[in-house]
Amino acid sequence: MPLSLVELIAKKRDGGAHEDAEIERLVGAFVAGELADYQMSAWLMAVYLRGMSTREAVALTYAMLRSGRTVDLSGVLGFKVDKHSTGGVGDKVSICLAPLVAACGVRVPMVSGRGLGHTGGTLDKLEAIPGFRTDLSVDDFIRIVGDVGTCMIGQTSEIAPADKRMYALRDVTATVECIPLIVASILSKKLAEGIDGLVLDVKVGKGAFMRDIDRARSLAESLVRVGTDAGKRVTALLTDMDAPLGQAVGNASETREAIRVLHGEGPPDLVECTLALGAEMLVVAGQAGTVELARKELGAAIASGRALAVMERMVAAQGGDPRVVADPSLLVVAPGVAVLAAESGFVASVDALEIGLAAVALGAGRTRADQRVDPAVGISIEAKPGAKVVRGEPLALLHVRDPRDAEAVRARVERAFAIANAAPPPRPLVLGRVAA
Amino acid sequence: MPLSLVELIAKKRDGGAHEDAEIERLVGAFVAGELADYQMSAWLMAVYLRGMSTREAVALTYAMLRSGRTVDLSGVLGFKVDKHSTGGVGDKVSICLAPLVAACGVRVPMVSGRGLGHTGGTLDKLEAIPGFRTDLSVDDFIRIVGDVGTCMIGQTSEIAPADKRMYALRDVTATVECIPLIVASILSKKLAEGIDGLVLDVKVGKGAFMRDIDRARSLAESLVRVGTDAGKRVTALLTDMDAPLGQAVGNASETREAIRVLHGEGPPDLVECTLALGAEMLVVAGQAGTVELARKELGAAIASGRALAVMERMVAAQGGDPRVVADPSLLVVAPGVAVLAAESGFVASVDALEIGLAAVALGAGRTRADQRVDPAVGISIEAKPGAKVVRGEPLALLHVRDPRDAEAVRARVERAFAIANAAPPPRPLVLGRVAA
Repeated sequence: MPLSLVELIAKKRDGGAHEDAEIERLVGAFVAGELADYQMSAWLMAVYLRGMSTREAVALTYAMLRSGRTVDLSGVLGFKVDKHSTGGVGDKVSICLAPLVAACGVRVPMVSGRGLGHTGGTLDKLEAIPGFRTDLSVDDFIRIVGDVGTCMIGQTSEIAPADKRMYALRDVTATVECIPLIVASILSKKLAEGIDGLVLDVKVGKGAFMRDIDRARSLAESLVRVGTDAGKRVTALLTDMDAPLGQAVGNASETREAIRVLHGEGPPDLVECTLALGAEMLVVAGQAGTVELARKELGAAIASGRALAVMERMVAAQGGDPRVVADPSLLVVAPGVAVLAAESGFVASVDALEIGLAAVALGAGRTRADQRVDPAVGISIEAKPGAKVVRGEPLALLHVRDPRDAEAVRARVERAFAIANAAPPPRPLVLGRVAA
Repeated sequence: MPLSLVELIAKKRDGGAHEDAEIERLVGAFVAGELADYQMSAWLMAVYLRGMSTREAVALTYAMLRSGRTVDLSGVLGFKVDKHSTGGVGDKVSICLAPLVAACGVRVPMVSGRGLGHTGGTLDKLEAIPGFRTDLSVDDFIRIVGDVGTCMIGQTSEIAPADKRMYALRDVTATVECIPLIVASILSKKLAEGIDGLVLDVKVGKGAFMRDIDRARSLAESLVRVGTDAGKRVTALLTDMDAPLGQAVGNASETREAIRVLHGEGPPDLVECTLALGAEMLVVAGQAGTVELARKELGAAIASGRALAVMERMVAAQGGDPRVVADPSLLVVAPGVAVLAAESGFVASVDALEIGLAAVALGAGRTRADQRVDPAVGISIEAKPGAKVVRGEPLALLHVRDPRDAEAVRARVERAFAIANAAPPPRPLVLGRVAA
């Protein structure tokens, strides 16, 4: 006789390992309403405290994936690779990365999220492009991936609905920070896209979900292990998120900055992050034998204008105004009010969390899922870590509709900058790599 | 800034010890609907896996107690002591114990429960007395305790409502068997009665909630420690529940058997259980200096007919027919169908769980709280452990309305009896004692 649902909760409570079919039953009963929210949350707490094996995490990933529909990309030729970031401040990498990798011959079907709390979301950034639609049908998504090489849409309610409901419970029951649950949540959504490979950008530092390198590495290892066991080619990079990535924090300005990377411009850390992740994607796809060769291909795609051309076609296919690709200054950014350095010295650090929260306060992000964002507002980091500043020079610009709006966050932004007498030691952007 | 409710869940998740005010807030928010069921169940699982200190259990007891109204017995003279049993099969002790102890000058305000699953409930047994009401108002309860010395009612929804809701969650989230939660559940309801002392009967064995003596002892120790820290005089006995207590299992027949104890009759194990618990109650109340002296007082109250007189007054005060006290055969029990011994030998054991489940199947108990019970049906154990039986002699009688009803449980009842060639070693009824 199979165990009852309550007996399954008791099994995990007592540290037992679930069989695949047991996890399938738990998730299936939850989606069907036979396992109540209060039973799922008790099980989630038991998982938090007792852990899960790789095999259990794979089973949970697939059970959540099968709770909804999946995208059938089997009709699209070529290897399909996506990138997923655990989220950060100023992280606009997807916007330049997807067209860049697609320009090298790899299909990049990308399903992204919206910003919440101090971390931004790719959908909000893309919607700064006039007319750009992220709510395409799955059929249109498949067609554009095939025609253009990449397409970027939002998660539909049909994909992994179990994950959405389980995440809502975890959020209010202190069970978010649990590696097997995080892994299954990320991978169930990504695997539902019909991808063959995945590159993960696990952010580490003050502005990241994982502040500690050891925990971030554990998460990266578990993501790679579970994804590989699920039959996908998966690599993860650990990248720095102590300071915001690039200069721009705010939706229109971040999209501007991302497009500039494809023009061969853009801040060095953003360029490095894009190239490092793009190289991994080409290697995962078998498009390049080594990351060094992959970087050359990426450089050529930028230099030749092919990456820009893919982006133009993608923007047009998704209803956006393609002229912003050639001229990103067409994206409207509100005028900047300067935050000045109170002393001379070197920028020792810029606290990404504080900058992210200040940007939310300006209206660039949201604290509740139903809030609207203003694409034109945000913050530009004018002095990145390591920069020499002179008293009275701008540390940051606050992009606001009304100069008075700047005052509410000025002190917070100023405090986010630590000024020291000596230059800080250079900190690499890529802190580690985890491959199967 | 105080921790948020989610932070409080995280604190227990991480093995922290709650402050009194934190537990008060969790329970208060739960009752007020600010902490959702799914949050409470996550916290309960965290408590299950991380445990609770005595101090936390005391705080939880009081928080649950304060979630509802309490009975103010301060206007009733004398020391008030109750007895609580963790539940078993054939456990009709309360019915004779309360009048017996009251006859010795101690007030016994008793709030009891109904049967569920294989364990019976005192309320169902009392209601076998024609006219007997257990749904009295709290005012009537207080008055009768004062006038008669004892009164036996059901738990009202006003007493410890947090416990009722938390228990309902525990029942379906695999968090029932957690000692601090059990302790707080029992003590919150008992302390809400306005008692000064409490004697606990922690049952051990096949028919008990605790099958293992070590876990039963842990529960008893925790009950005594928390109850004592809460300022009450508390003692616990561990008593045997491998076999049903006494001969009768079924509501009318159990009430009959309990009344016979006050006539100086009744099965030895039931008499011993009643006297052992009664003696502890007199000692807890300061009515006797030692359990030996207390036993003499109890014996005198039975021999003199004082205990019967108190029971008559209690039955009358609660609307029941007092004639059943002088003549318990007035309680209607259905005719018995014999289950015969298939072989000769000694009764090695009688499985209380199987007998309890068979009695439920006959209609003496319930598997859902909304089911009705038939007071006249049940099972009489005709050959207790240690008894010599000859093939063809009755092991048990199945009291049924229609002889055909017996057939559904006959095999189960027969299997509950283990027959051996030699007499089993005698097993004491009282297996241990825990005092402050």
